[in-house]
Amino acid sequence: MQIGMIGLGKMGYSLSLNLLDKNYTVIAHDMNKEALQQFISDGGESVSTIKELVHRLEPPRTVWMMVPAGDATESVFQALLNCLESGDRLIDGGNAHYKDSIKRGDACKEKSIYFFDCGTSGGVEGARNGACMMIGGDQQEFDKIKSLFQDLTVKDGYLYTGPIGSGHFLKMVHNGMEYGMMQAIAEGFDILEKSPFSYNYEKVAKVWNNGSVIRSWLMELTEKAFEKDPNLEQIKGIMHSSGEGKWTVETALDYEMAAPVITLALMMRYRSQEEDTFTGKVVAALRNEFGGHAVIDA
Amino acid sequence: MQIGMIGLGKMGYSLSLNLLDKNYTVIAHDMNKEALQQFISDGGESVSTIKELVHRLEPPRTVWMMVPAGDATESVFQALLNCLESGDRLIDGGNAHYKDSIKRGDACKEKSIYFFDCGTSGGVEGARNGACMMIGGDQQEFDKIKSLFQDLTVKDGYLYTGPIGSGHFLKMVHNGMEYGMMQAIAEGFDILEKSPFSYNYEKVAKVWNNGSVIRSWLMELTEKAFEKDPNLEQIKGIMHSSGEGKWTVETALDYEMAAPVITLALMMRYRSQEEDTFTGKVVAALRNEFGGHAVIDA
Repeated sequence: MQIGMIGLGKMGYSLSLNLLDKNYTVIAHDMNKEALQQFISDGGESVSTIKELVHRLEPPRTVWMMVPAGDATESVFQALLNCLESGDRLIDGGNAHYKDSIKRGDACKEKSIYFFDCGTSGGVEGARNGACMMIGGDQQEFDKIKSLFQDLTVKDGYLYTGPIGSGHFLKMVHNGMEYGMMQAIAEGFDILEKSPFSYNYEKVAKVWNNGSVIRSWLMELTEKAFEKDPNLEQIKGIMHSSGEGKWTVETALDYEMAAPVITLALMMRYRSQEEDTFTGKVVAALRNEFGGHAVIDA
Repeated sequence: MQIGMIGLGKMGYSLSLNLLDKNYTVIAHDMNKEALQQFISDGGESVSTIKELVHRLEPPRTVWMMVPAGDATESVFQALLNCLESGDRLIDGGNAHYKDSIKRGDACKEKSIYFFDCGTSGGVEGARNGACMMIGGDQQEFDKIKSLFQDLTVKDGYLYTGPIGSGHFLKMVHNGMEYGMMQAIAEGFDILEKSPFSYNYEKVAKVWNNGSVIRSWLMELTEKAFEKDPNLEQIKGIMHSSGEGKWTVETALDYEMAAPVITLALMMRYRSQEEDTFTGKVVAALRNEFGGHAVIDA
């Protein structure tokens, strides 16, 4: 089977190699010419424009977008919308906002193109060797290409989730949970770090991965991180995020529901990005005003 | 090897069966005579008093306490402290507060009894077939009995954690993390439940257990729960707790550190236990006072 892959970043490249292993013909496009060159030497094919990619694929085409959410996805999407034809399939395997995916699905529908929003989890390792995928879109058309998802995922690692939007929505919530779980794990290790005991964190994570209630892939990654750097002295505690945690919290707000742990996990990431806070200044100033408590000069 | 087991509740009974499988001689005591009777028919031995238990074991004795933390543990401990002799070993496999374990360790030291605080994770299934154990106490003496922990746990499932207190402290923090992770998972499913999509939660948990970043034993338990009751219609959302989450938060307060996710996870459990709150009444009353906003009569 022929697949057009747009985006040879960490995830797209790994998925493409995974597809080559499964004997797919992968024709790839990326802005980065070095990645394209590398891909050819790894056994893939490459084209320098999206138009050419569409031209090279036999209809009905199957094109996989694996580019960053936002502007990059939108510009690739618009280019594809111009070239693809009735009956073609377009899979967005990236982390687009589900509302954008619904809009893109509507635009595709007008041209009788089948759009699938595919949430992809499992990291780079998963993309290379077997990921987890949650796919929204037309069910009958999904059935025709489900072997593609089966080939890219671990056993029982893909799920048809319903109409367009439901795949990216599910991946968004997955990431929101991930934020909360990671923060909970991290707070626990912080308490250990401040305790009177001298734990070997790698060994702690390892024992917890063997038989405990909190055994998990995240704890395995924690074990790996402590193996490389026993007290994480080489990195700063600055926690970035890439959007899906924020969207999960915005969604909870849309539904006017309480999701305090996911919300706080997100906000602690923001807090970690500020060295000092205006909040802190205001509280310190107020304590000084009413109680004469000392403040620390900037 | 002979083991004296005090406490044939769910955990103690399962550990005892696990020990019998590994050809230990298990002499058990429990207040519940039916449990003792059952244990005899399962191949164990039983005694009706702690004194008798100590009498039946050959010195140096190894006694395992598996009773609820608090008064039950303290009363069994005091009884054992009176009977055990120099060189004997006393393992508390329950969920005692680490500060109590340190005190008990000091009391044992005065009588040259070796005390071990052993945090046990993995639930009833783990206790029966292979648990995860974190053990504090004298290291040389630990080395003499480590085969016991090896036999009771899964591969790589036990860890000597340091001085007395360090085992129960580590288990406490493990449970604190567990609270945060569970709440994060639960909030995510709550968002799915309020979404416009119709997910099959069992299938969602299943796909997340196969290749995703959040795959974990907790997600496997989530899958099992949804398998039994697809929308959890048969249970109320009242979340109890048994102490270790609270101790984790108290410990974070002792260290004057931020652990917002574990803290909120605990407080959401408390919130779930109240049908209405005084907080809610106060806020509703204030909105009414300043803005004339409607209140709902009790």
